Amino acid sequence: MSKVRVSFSVSIDGFGAAPQQSLENPMGVGGEVLGEWVFATRTFRRMHDKDWTFQRIDGEHGGATGIDDDLFARRFLNVGAWIFGRNMFGPVRGPWPDNSWKGAWGDSPPFRNPVFVLTHYARESIPMQGGTTFHFVTDGIDRALERAAAAADGKDVCIGGGVSTIQQYLRAGLIDELNLAICPALLGSGERFFGDIDLVKLGYRCTQHVAGERATHVVLERRAS
Amino acid sequence: MSKVRVSFSVSIDGFGAAPQQSLENPMGVGGEVLGEWVFATRTFRRMHDKDWTFQRIDGEHGGATGIDDDLFARRFLNVGAWIFGRNMFGPVRGPWPDNSWKGAWGDSPPFRNPVFVLTHYARESIPMQGGTTFHFVTDGIDRALERAAAAADGKDVCIGGGVSTIQQYLRAGLIDELNLAICPALLGSGERFFGDIDLVKLGYRCTQHVAGERATHVVLERRAS
Repeated sequence: MSKVRVSFSVSIDGFGAAPQQSLENPMGVGGEVLGEWVFATRTFRRMHDKDWTFQRIDGEHGGATGIDDDLFARRFLNVGAWIFGRNMFGPVRGPWPDNSWKGAWGDSPPFRNPVFVLTHYARESIPMQGGTTFHFVTDGIDRALERAAAAADGKDVCIGGGVSTIQQYLRAGLIDELNLAICPALLGSGERFFGDIDLVKLGYRCTQHVAGERATHVVLERRAS
Repeated sequence: MSKVRVSFSVSIDGFGAAPQQSLENPMGVGGEVLGEWVFATRTFRRMHDKDWTFQRIDGEHGGATGIDDDLFARRFLNVGAWIFGRNMFGPVRGPWPDNSWKGAWGDSPPFRNPVFVLTHYARESIPMQGGTTFHFVTDGIDRALERAAAAADGKDVCIGGGVSTIQQYLRAGLIDELNLAICPALLGSGERFFGDIDLVKLGYRCTQHVAGERATHVVLERRAS
């Protein structure tokens, strides 16, 4: 059965992003600690081999295999469509000044499927190389999920983020499963992943936990009501 | 060098206690999930062998050894004195009605050292069996720490809790090291361990993380300023 899923990284003190997000610091100033476990994996490096230069981090061309790598790869398995908040798509605010901003993932983004971007400002869809097409949805989170589910055609829909978008879908009771990586780092300030949301009241429980090499991974699932 | 330390358990969603704490539910309703990794250890069971009946949980008389057990045992190593909030000492509120309440740990509490209890209401010290004496401090957290440090005589002082007491000492910059066990469970509501405290601004960083059998353990240390 298809699911609505989230995969996200949080700090020990519960932040999903650091303050002062920008083009230079997409996860906020200091927020890159949330990505360290990802950047180290073989899957991430292969994914960005053509476009990005991460493959030479730490002198490890190939990246690490293991639990972190397996779980990062699993984030992309059986996903048929993505939903992003406007903030996750990029730093442009307000009306689109032109069509030049096409995300921060190069010409061939790793999503390989339709990506529905929540925005208040209409824009033509952008087909990218490798199967990713960015669509812009101006009529709310429910409609975005309807369109994503239709596009996913029986596969899962992944809510990519950011924190505010995930919280909106959580409050609406629309997320089946959260895969969280708890990173061994403090952020101190930024966007609180859980905010004031009572996940127990919403029906979630922790169903799996496994220690990776650079993060602890937990799965939170919602009971069928 | 002697340290001021904290050892505490938190849920994935950052709670250090569940709501509705009482005599029956000292960690709040549902809060016992924060203690599961402790209850399973050999150290905990031996500690309570005489007074309590935990040793027969799960049919394991002896309790588990391993990483959780090692780290739980380490909580008590080199500790020369403890500080407890009034709430942690017990459910009695307001002026002490009499001297009958002596904590929830039986005649021979596992602390084996002086325990300084923060309270607004003076009370005679209570010597218990096995080396624990409860002292009652009515002149604030700084004075309690002074007395505890003197009593510890070069060993560490452990702030036992609860959440509110730990937060007061954190804000005052008086804690050197936090040992947190992140439990694979959600609480949804209760006392937020980190509250609105910015641990990065206070100088803390994560210096160790290790996966135990039933919890992930992290050490947060404050840089010498």
